[in-house]
Amino acid sequence: MTKILDGKILAQKIKLEIKQQVANLTKRKPKLAVIIIGDDLASQMYVHTKIKACQTCDIDGQVIALDKSANQTEVISHIERLNNDSTIDGILVQLPLPKHLDMLTIINTITIDKDVDGLTNINAGRLLQGDKQTMLPCTVKGILELLTYYKILIKGQNVTIINDSNIVGKPLGLLLNNMGATVSVAHKLTKDLFAYTKNADIICTATGVHNIINNKQVKPGVTIIDIAINYTGPNKKLVGDVNFMEMAKVAGAITPVPGGVGPMTIAILLTNLMTCYELNNK
Amino acid sequence: MTKILDGKILAQKIKLEIKQQVANLTKRKPKLAVIIIGDDLASQMYVHTKIKACQTCDIDGQVIALDKSANQTEVISHIERLNNDSTIDGILVQLPLPKHLDMLTIINTITIDKDVDGLTNINAGRLLQGDKQTMLPCTVKGILELLTYYKILIKGQNVTIINDSNIVGKPLGLLLNNMGATVSVAHKLTKDLFAYTKNADIICTATGVHNIINNKQVKPGVTIIDIAINYTGPNKKLVGDVNFMEMAKVAGAITPVPGGVGPMTIAILLTNLMTCYELNNK
Repeated sequence: MTKILDGKILAQKIKLEIKQQVANLTKRKPKLAVIIIGDDLASQMYVHTKIKACQTCDIDGQVIALDKSANQTEVISHIERLNNDSTIDGILVQLPLPKHLDMLTIINTITIDKDVDGLTNINAGRLLQGDKQTMLPCTVKGILELLTYYKILIKGQNVTIINDSNIVGKPLGLLLNNMGATVSVAHKLTKDLFAYTKNADIICTATGVHNIINNKQVKPGVTIIDIAINYTGPNKKLVGDVNFMEMAKVAGAITPVPGGVGPMTIAILLTNLMTCYELNNK
Repeated sequence: MTKILDGKILAQKIKLEIKQQVANLTKRKPKLAVIIIGDDLASQMYVHTKIKACQTCDIDGQVIALDKSANQTEVISHIERLNNDSTIDGILVQLPLPKHLDMLTIINTITIDKDVDGLTNINAGRLLQGDKQTMLPCTVKGILELLTYYKILIKGQNVTIINDSNIVGKPLGLLLNNMGATVSVAHKLTKDLFAYTKNADIICTATGVHNIINNKQVKPGVTIIDIAINYTGPNKKLVGDVNFMEMAKVAGAITPVPGGVGPMTIAILLTNLMTCYELNNK
């Protein structure tokens, strides 16, 4: 019987707990600041979803929308102002940024205790060091919570991650390695992907290529964590990297798309914000 | 014909270049401070080797030897003093530390521009981010220099690293991943090590277990980077993780032990120190 790793229901549970935590606060409410630069539609949609999630939990959300021509100094000065604003608990810069901006410098300007996305170099370095203080990137922590909640064994397991981004693949690899998994990080240049997927007990995939692997290219009983958001067919149906119905015939556990990693990423943003709130109100 | 990745000769070349750079400096000489805590014999030997390497290149080396009972505050205050001392370019804390000390807090106290060992969380995070400003850990950069000098292809290759430490396995994995390799990080809990070694174009091993893999467990033509320092037999002969003569029959390229990664690690410490010197004299 294939286990469905339902992220929607777990995310609901997490948000409910946060709403109760917020209701019990005696001081001011937590507040998230989101900086969005330019007019990318997908980015605007993501920001909207994040702010709406805040509202569900009675968390304040502020959007700072900058023109696509905003320069580096302008963006940095916004972040510095938010760093120094004691009513702001978390700062999130919606990615991707317009090409003329230096992403790393901008991200690394966020003060460590407000790094709600866990993307600064200090938090990334803490993760490498196995420092429990690290703030994990939302998607990475969302996957960890899913695996933990649904009791998927990590220690000693072979994990193949098909994605090597700073936000997903690299931090997820370090996290699972720290937890005792043997981790392979594959990507576009990988020459024999299926050798890695066939050997894996857990596959985490975020390629944006629907059907990147099929159920003959995995081990029976494998856990599939599908992180991708793809639109397919004339009706632009939302799908992941794998064909859910086909893969479920072979997998031991699998996340649906939608309703798997996606809602978890949003819920964990609020979890991280609550951690930032505590750090900023010590 | 198996290529021998001679680290001794490359290290000599690097040290000669540094000696010339130092001779051409118009300001003060570069200076390394090494903190050693306790009386571990191997640690004392390593510190001695590092200071001697400095002397070969006319670099000043200062050893701060603390008693094994030194407490956290004492160690931190030494580092802070060195951070603020403008005549010190690099600060190295010899590992391992006595168990009562908090290693991460101590390492992360080193100011970023004097982090000659590349072990602080900021430098580790920069590495994850692919930030070129990162200071690589000496062994990791030593391996990179060996692979580069001897023209071993990295991009698109399958790499298996048998070590998942903060100093070797994890940063080496990120570095080679950033360079386009498909990287697997294996360790003590890996259940089918040979599946990973047989699939690898490059194997980097640092387990401390002599003969951890033999020449039947690798692909013909593989590059072997042997990072280990093991002593074997009644005469305590220095060997690596692999049997050099046996592995050389199958490998396309291989580092000897001694004379491979070891001397490179020491030479790169000086390279990193020169980078710190430039950062501190901007």
